Amino acid sequence: MSSEMNRYPSEIAALLKKVLNQDGPIPLHEPSFKGREWEYVKDCLDSSFVSSVGKYVDQFEDRLAQFTGVKHAVAVVNGTAALHICLKLIGVEQGDEVLVPALTFIATANAVCYCGATPHFIDSNFESLGIDPEKLEDYLAGITFQMNGVCYNKQTMCPIKAVIAMHTFGHPVDIDPLLEVCQRYKLELIEDAAESLGSYYKNRHTGSFGKLSSLSFNGNKIVTTGGGGAVLTNDDALAKQAKHISTTAKLPHQWAFIHDQVGYNDRLPNINAALGCAQMEQINQFIDKKRDLAKKYAQAFSKVQGITFFNEPAYARSNYWLNVLILSEENSAMRDPILLETSQQGIMTRPAWTLMNHLPMFQSCPHMDLSSAESLERRIINIPSSARLAESFQLDS
Amino acid sequence: MSSEMNRYPSEIAALLKKVLNQDGPIPLHEPSFKGREWEYVKDCLDSSFVSSVGKYVDQFEDRLAQFTGVKHAVAVVNGTAALHICLKLIGVEQGDEVLVPALTFIATANAVCYCGATPHFIDSNFESLGIDPEKLEDYLAGITFQMNGVCYNKQTMCPIKAVIAMHTFGHPVDIDPLLEVCQRYKLELIEDAAESLGSYYKNRHTGSFGKLSSLSFNGNKIVTTGGGGAVLTNDDALAKQAKHISTTAKLPHQWAFIHDQVGYNDRLPNINAALGCAQMEQINQFIDKKRDLAKKYAQAFSKVQGITFFNEPAYARSNYWLNVLILSEENSAMRDPILLETSQQGIMTRPAWTLMNHLPMFQSCPHMDLSSAESLERRIINIPSSARLAESFQLDS
Repeated sequence: MSSEMNRYPSEIAALLKKVLNQDGPIPLHEPSFKGREWEYVKDCLDSSFVSSVGKYVDQFEDRLAQFTGVKHAVAVVNGTAALHICLKLIGVEQGDEVLVPALTFIATANAVCYCGATPHFIDSNFESLGIDPEKLEDYLAGITFQMNGVCYNKQTMCPIKAVIAMHTFGHPVDIDPLLEVCQRYKLELIEDAAESLGSYYKNRHTGSFGKLSSLSFNGNKIVTTGGGGAVLTNDDALAKQAKHISTTAKLPHQWAFIHDQVGYNDRLPNINAALGCAQMEQINQFIDKKRDLAKKYAQAFSKVQGITFFNEPAYARSNYWLNVLILSEENSAMRDPILLETSQQGIMTRPAWTLMNHLPMFQSCPHMDLSSAESLERRIINIPSSARLAESFQLDS
Repeated sequence: MSSEMNRYPSEIAALLKKVLNQDGPIPLHEPSFKGREWEYVKDCLDSSFVSSVGKYVDQFEDRLAQFTGVKHAVAVVNGTAALHICLKLIGVEQGDEVLVPALTFIATANAVCYCGATPHFIDSNFESLGIDPEKLEDYLAGITFQMNGVCYNKQTMCPIKAVIAMHTFGHPVDIDPLLEVCQRYKLELIEDAAESLGSYYKNRHTGSFGKLSSLSFNGNKIVTTGGGGAVLTNDDALAKQAKHISTTAKLPHQWAFIHDQVGYNDRLPNINAALGCAQMEQINQFIDKKRDLAKKYAQAFSKVQGITFFNEPAYARSNYWLNVLILSEENSAMRDPILLETSQQGIMTRPAWTLMNHLPMFQSCPHMDLSSAESLERRIINIPSSARLAESFQLDS
């Protein structure tokens, strides 16, 4: 390694320090509870309704629906459960395949397995970090056939039922061409919007395009309920079903316990929803701050060789959930030294997820050429992204 | 119906009113938050650690382990998730059968289905309201054979892997003879102790006998976390696995996302665990009050014809989670009129669960003769059981 290369990690760390202008360890993403969180949670405790029946669950669902512009939101215990319910409701079952980006958090692929189906991994592009619709179309043209309105994988002879579009680190996938592919290949679109609450594709909120979509309110997300998630849909019947199967599929009755299918115990507790209601009152502030922070990062890294700050695609307005630096291909060997150097200096950073097809349990799953996802995996570094970091940064203008 | 029979429901309602000595609607089971709930939850919010990493999760697990005398407790999002993990960890999979009482809450059977296995329904007895070990042994002698240490169902040729013993309404199953049956038939014992935190079998806590056991902290349970559950086990390796697979099966690494199997996103959020820690500080008071209430009910109903208050089995000390009245067989037609009359008077009551084999999705599952469970289903009425109700009752002595 040249001496220039030796200095590179500490130069990146120094620049991050300068932008963030803070002492002490800086987490990747931490929540902020400066709104009415205490008030609502205390009210919830005082009411004794802490469990899955209670006014905060209804309020939280209303606020989510209003904010996203999607007709229905059904609050559940976490984003993984939300995704599982989405897949169940479009009829994904044993022996089916579901197209899933190889570059995603494990939950996307796990939820497919919970249905007994197989994740089939597809490539991402450099514009969105999510599914590449053109490359997907070329691939499907070669490996599928259609019969009675169902798309089949020629090699496995399994039905391919759906595509899950994950909006990576908050940046929206290019949805219009993806919807065209879905239509041509008879695939349902599910959006994994776990990371993209507050992100818009052509002025419409992510999660409003898929037949069903999932959100997450884990501790590291834009807004948090401790742990939580939601199913979004514009379809009245599917919304009703989502609520039904996440509430043990119990039929309404004055006292009898009649359940009409194998259901789940997945509803969000009221106490977590109370937290969520307070958080949703602040979401626009959070996003404004996060976009400010992103702007500063973009500015700071604009003149640095061999590394690029990832900006939202032209068609999108992103929440910049986790900010992304991308090393040049020649510089990709610097990823781990930078991760090490920054973490030693108390700046929490992390690489992209290991590609799903590289994990032992998914190694035998079908996949297309994944060269772009592989390239991104080698080169992505996530950097601190909490909303509060926008309050203290300092930059030369 | 004779005029005597006509009056029976209102007589039962009047007696309940007299015992409970309260105006206004009386729920079946409501939580009490008079301890340090608010303090801990506020501390949790102040710390920003509301999600699945945090000190309250560790503390809650420690308190559960200490209270139950089981070596390890792993806190998860709810009792259903806990049961699912128990089944996964003993290797229940597609094509297996698991013996489950027909008289149980739906979660017990659902968790079996989540593994792709089939619930096989077995009878309860009148002594415990749970599994009848003798009748089970006679049944297994007739319908099973063993090969290479595995028990098979002769008719379906499927392996029968385990028995789930559910401690009904908090009353312990007769575990010693059940353990003998398990040993003879090579079945793992899992305890569904969702309702029996604070219940003891021969001075040992329920949930300490099975290879793995599950607890629930739903809003209606002895202690609540809003929604929550736990896996209990004395086996170090299984405890480690329970934590691993409920945390997306992620391997420890400074930054890389390596998961070694299809895992779950099932860990209890810290904010819910904070509530649980405060609740566990009061559990002994809750149980004392609930046992007092049970005593008063027993006394009040001792002279009533055609209905019996269900007392803990001789071998047990029960938490009396939900108090139980059992109508005589001749009087069983009174069940619904009593449920109706009491609910009209603001006293919440409910019947036992619909037997699992009567639900549409389980109708084709294998089952033994279920005459005792059927009889119990016809005759059981649950009556108000909140700890606080012990504070205001009044009885002639």
